Amino acid sequence: MTRKVAVIGLGHVGTAISNYLIFSGATDELVLIDKNELKLNAEATDFADAAANLTSHTKIIVNDYAALADADVIVSALGNISQQNDDAKHDRFVELAFNQAAAKEVGTKIKESGFNGVLVSISNPCDVIAALFQKFSGLPEDQVIGTGTLLDSARMKKAVGQTLKVDPRSVSGYNLGEHGNSQFTAWSTVRVLDQPITKLAEEDEDIDLAALNETVRAGGYTVFHGKHYTNYGIASAAVHLVNAILSDSHEELPVSYFHEKYGTYISSPVVISKKGIAKKVPLDLTPEEQAKLQKSAEYVKNRFDTAYAELK
Amino acid sequence: MTRKVAVIGLGHVGTAISNYLIFSGATDELVLIDKNELKLNAEATDFADAAANLTSHTKIIVNDYAALADADVIVSALGNISQQNDDAKHDRFVELAFNQAAAKEVGTKIKESGFNGVLVSISNPCDVIAALFQKFSGLPEDQVIGTGTLLDSARMKKAVGQTLKVDPRSVSGYNLGEHGNSQFTAWSTVRVLDQPITKLAEEDEDIDLAALNETVRAGGYTVFHGKHYTNYGIASAAVHLVNAILSDSHEELPVSYFHEKYGTYISSPVVISKKGIAKKVPLDLTPEEQAKLQKSAEYVKNRFDTAYAELK
Amino acid sequence: MTRKVAVIGLGHVGTAISNYLIFSGATDELVLIDKNELKLNAEATDFADAAANLTSHTKIIVNDYAALADADVIVSALGNISQQNDDAKHDRFVELAFNQAAAKEVGTKIKESGFNGVLVSISNPCDVIAALFQKFSGLPEDQVIGTGTLLDSARMKKAVGQTLKVDPRSVSGYNLGEHGNSQFTAWSTVRVLDQPITKLAEEDEDIDLAALNETVRAGGYTVFHGKHYTNYGIASAAVHLVNAILSDSHEELPVSYFHEKYGTYISSPVVISKKGIAKKVPLDLTPEEQAKLQKSAEYVKNRFDTAYAELK
Amino acid sequence: MTRKVAVIGLGHVGTAISNYLIFSGATDELVLIDKNELKLNAEATDFADAAANLTSHTKIIVNDYAALADADVIVSALGNISQQNDDAKHDRFVELAFNQAAAKEVGTKIKESGFNGVLVSISNPCDVIAALFQKFSGLPEDQVIGTGTLLDSARMKKAVGQTLKVDPRSVSGYNLGEHGNSQFTAWSTVRVLDQPITKLAEEDEDIDLAALNETVRAGGYTVFHGKHYTNYGIASAAVHLVNAILSDSHEELPVSYFHEKYGTYISSPVVISKKGIAKKVPLDLTPEEQAKLQKSAEYVKNRFDTAYAELK
Repeated sequence: MTRKVAVIGLGHVGTAISNYLIFSGATDELVLIDKNELKLNAEATDFADAAANLTSHTKIIVNDYAALADADVIVSALGNISQQNDDAKHDRFVELAFNQAAAKEVGTKIKESGFNGVLVSISNPCDVIAALFQKFSGLPEDQVIGTGTLLDSARMKKAVGQTLKVDPRSVSGYNLGEHGNSQFTAWSTVRVLDQPITKLAEEDEDIDLAALNETVRAGGYTVFHGKHYTNYGIASAAVHLVNAILSDSHEELPVSYFHEKYGTYISSPVVISKKGIAKKVPLDLTPEEQAKLQKSAEYVKNRFDTAYAELK
Repeated sequence: MTRKVAVIGLGHVGTAISNYLIFSGATDELVLIDKNELKLNAEATDFADAAANLTSHTKIIVNDYAALADADVIVSALGNISQQNDDAKHDRFVELAFNQAAAKEVGTKIKESGFNGVLVSISNPCDVIAALFQKFSGLPEDQVIGTGTLLDSARMKKAVGQTLKVDPRSVSGYNLGEHGNSQFTAWSTVRVLDQPITKLAEEDEDIDLAALNETVRAGGYTVFHGKHYTNYGIASAAVHLVNAILSDSHEELPVSYFHEKYGTYISSPVVISKKGIAKKVPLDLTPEEQAKLQKSAEYVKNRFDTAYAELK
Repeated sequence: MTRKVAVIGLGHVGTAISNYLIFSGATDELVLIDKNELKLNAEATDFADAAANLTSHTKIIVNDYAALADADVIVSALGNISQQNDDAKHDRFVELAFNQAAAKEVGTKIKESGFNGVLVSISNPCDVIAALFQKFSGLPEDQVIGTGTLLDSARMKKAVGQTLKVDPRSVSGYNLGEHGNSQFTAWSTVRVLDQPITKLAEEDEDIDLAALNETVRAGGYTVFHGKHYTNYGIASAAVHLVNAILSDSHEELPVSYFHEKYGTYISSPVVISKKGIAKKVPLDLTPEEQAKLQKSAEYVKNRFDTAYAELK
Repeated sequence: MTRKVAVIGLGHVGTAISNYLIFSGATDELVLIDKNELKLNAEATDFADAAANLTSHTKIIVNDYAALADADVIVSALGNISQQNDDAKHDRFVELAFNQAAAKEVGTKIKESGFNGVLVSISNPCDVIAALFQKFSGLPEDQVIGTGTLLDSARMKKAVGQTLKVDPRSVSGYNLGEHGNSQFTAWSTVRVLDQPITKLAEEDEDIDLAALNETVRAGGYTVFHGKHYTNYGIASAAVHLVNAILSDSHEELPVSYFHEKYGTYISSPVVISKKGIAKKVPLDLTPEEQAKLQKSAEYVKNRFDTAYAELK
């Protein structure tokens, strides 16, 4: 019945995602939604001006919530650009006040549309906003996913790949927890060159896990400092997730979802299908990693509880 | 020997082009050059953060003019973002003072690098800057191309396609002249549904060429007004041109090149090869269209002469 | 709701189409149907063995007519390989006896499945078999399309492109009529380098339309003679058509469809949408071309009438 | 300098690889070489007939060994189709007599061409023929690679993925040794759902490693039995390898290369770059796996020694 994707929020991230979906022909219909109609129409016109020079065709639909009814995937890239300033370098929660209200408003409209696909939420703080979207959209938990540490894991793979001189796609393993300051690389899960990286690090002093930790953690801030926002890294993560959903691929990816154990959204690996989360993957973490994950989860849960109480 | 592309100038247009080249795997090596090192490193880091979630691998090289020596294509997307403000709505020449100096500086560095591929220039005023690049890079005229009216033609095809309910890729024909206020659709070249559009317009009052002219002319300004710059339409035109050069495709495309007849850069169709312009396509224009083209050429030539005299 | 395509008949053409759809990720689900279960399972296993080395995921469903109910497109590449021998060089009708019975059987099963998408028929004789599929599938005429002269037109564009040294995609125009011996290039529709080719041929003796006619007509036989079947040219035509349908692109393409005027399936250009034929494009043919088309149509109609009478 | 790939041997495998390279636009120039000129020209014509319906352009060069001088990659898919009969189900060595002579002849011609890229050899018996190609081409060992167990590993990932309901791309691990009867899955290297599969197999009786072994081993024969050759699985492996070389990706892949330790070509994982093998990855195998690998290597070495002695 053709592929249909919606992107809500046409800031730097939403436009980068739309750009790639349109230029690659990954979706047959693309619904673009933004409150700023002037900007939205400008972006839609700019994309339409590209059509004659592309190798595929995408139908673009503008600001029509009713068009979400039969969409396969909605990507929410909501955000108040004016707030994505240098303060955000230190805390993704500066965006919470704006985004929690938006999640309620938009989530409610998604519910009203009758949408029954998979909702991918990018907006920060990622885990809290994804959880709010689940509440207000009324979608089953398995159908609401935050991009979470899919980006942090990509940054880890990049850092490990650069150190070991291998493609980041040949590095496996996960960053876990909040997509925020309390995220961490679960080094016990990371493997490269057919070895646990912890073993390689013991044997080779050039592999410094503490330094890699710092590189990963600092990744987004380096980008932020130089361009005042991040978009291409997170856009590629979102597009990877969208394509996995559309093709029902059953790839294993670390994303933010509702953990019964912690009573909150937080990231760890799952198997992705066209109905969202097909399987939650249990991890054999070290006690130290388990403690970090627990602490990260508690932090998110508290923030969510406060936000949700304010909104109800 | 692998594909190697360089993008100089990482503003809205340069990053959109880089984004697509990287996400699609269209080039094996991508050289990114920008004077703002902080922003450049941020963009390169953001692209590197995408790598683990992509399906192809691109080696990114930063700020290394020496790396241009064996590049296949250089795309110049120079521009002073702070000048790309609302004034530019009315005249692409507001960018001239900044870009003409940049074309001299960058063109000279390209010459020093020993580059002998094809230089694609996007920066406005497109025809004048492409001509300056040819002078300062010392490259043969056939190897320096301005994107010119490839974008205007795409806007015309979009407008015609929307009116006739056909894909813009099923509309043929050209916008000619300066990529600026004096550009025009050569309606005598436009065909759709196996008919000259001039004939269809005589038969069907819903096909109003004057109104289509206005839609095409206003295209960029609508985008400008809503988002303060244009990038996706022009990026797709540039990527189309880059892919035609890399694959030596011999596609016929309208771009800005040096016309002996007018003594200036200006747009009309050519056949594109890996050495740039393989063949210049003569057009059977109406006398009125010929006059418009001549006038447009004279305008560009005067502007170029002044700019070049200042720079020599 | 994800893209779903079916390929019926896994000979040289059906497998080449399936290969490209799977390797490119163009469809999310692919239904493969063939009476030879041994070969079908071998092909499906071979495709499954490719999955780990591809960049996208495709769900493959085997021999399940019920799975056609919600498919977007069915491609019928039926054919009796043992009959595709050298005799077929001279007449695509040698396949008729086998394929007309298969069209009735398969068309009836498609009807029973409840399929309501677009049926693309490749099997020879293309126009007759497409017409039989329309009758037995019970689908509206606009939803049953033969690939027809989309391949012949591609051969013409190749021949013209080679002569004029331009990409075949920069040649426009059509081959019309039966996909068989009575097809012809409507030279009055062919344009290249912004000129009617008839005008170029008058001015340049190296452009010999009679010789080009022969090259186009001989195209398939050269392939046949060397490899005993043709598949890549026709597969690319079919994939082009499938992608146009899936993305609702409204591209203008020459294909075989039911012409009221002639009372038969035969090829001329149409606008393709996700519901099949969105618009039939009238042509301004020369009297000579009109006569050829009429004659070609009569030939097909007679063959169809006989075949249909036998099957009813 | 644009991408340039050559495919030598246009049987079922060589054409499937060429098909994908052309349809996807993965290479700018494709050199096709085959001793059967009639068939070669037929295939080249068939590919040329596809060009007008594709989204990219590929220059096809036919039977020109001199064109190999500046190629990036040569894929050898030599083989005597008439010998690829049911006997080959039981032993890939039935093709040895034909292919060893062809490797000498073709390898010598490659040497004479001045080629200095990477040679990827598919022809069976894969390890022996790759080794012969290295000898006769005179290329450094790191620049001659057999596809080896890249296909067997894909079959293992498919079998594991089907059992665990995950995408084969989310399964890691290797099949090792000869691409032939003595290959084996090194289960100690296989991981899925963040666990060693050996651990999962202990906990879940539905995961039966012996049965999976049998599925992997039987993979090719199932295909062979039904269609009398295999091509899509091996083509996807070869294309994956070609793309890794062209883009200098540094992906880790199991392929056949010269192991100093064993004095023979045999498969285990390496890091792939544009100069071939950038790094050989040591494995922590179990003693049983080490013994199997040693035995497999000895088998290949003996066969190679005999073949090479005959040819010198």
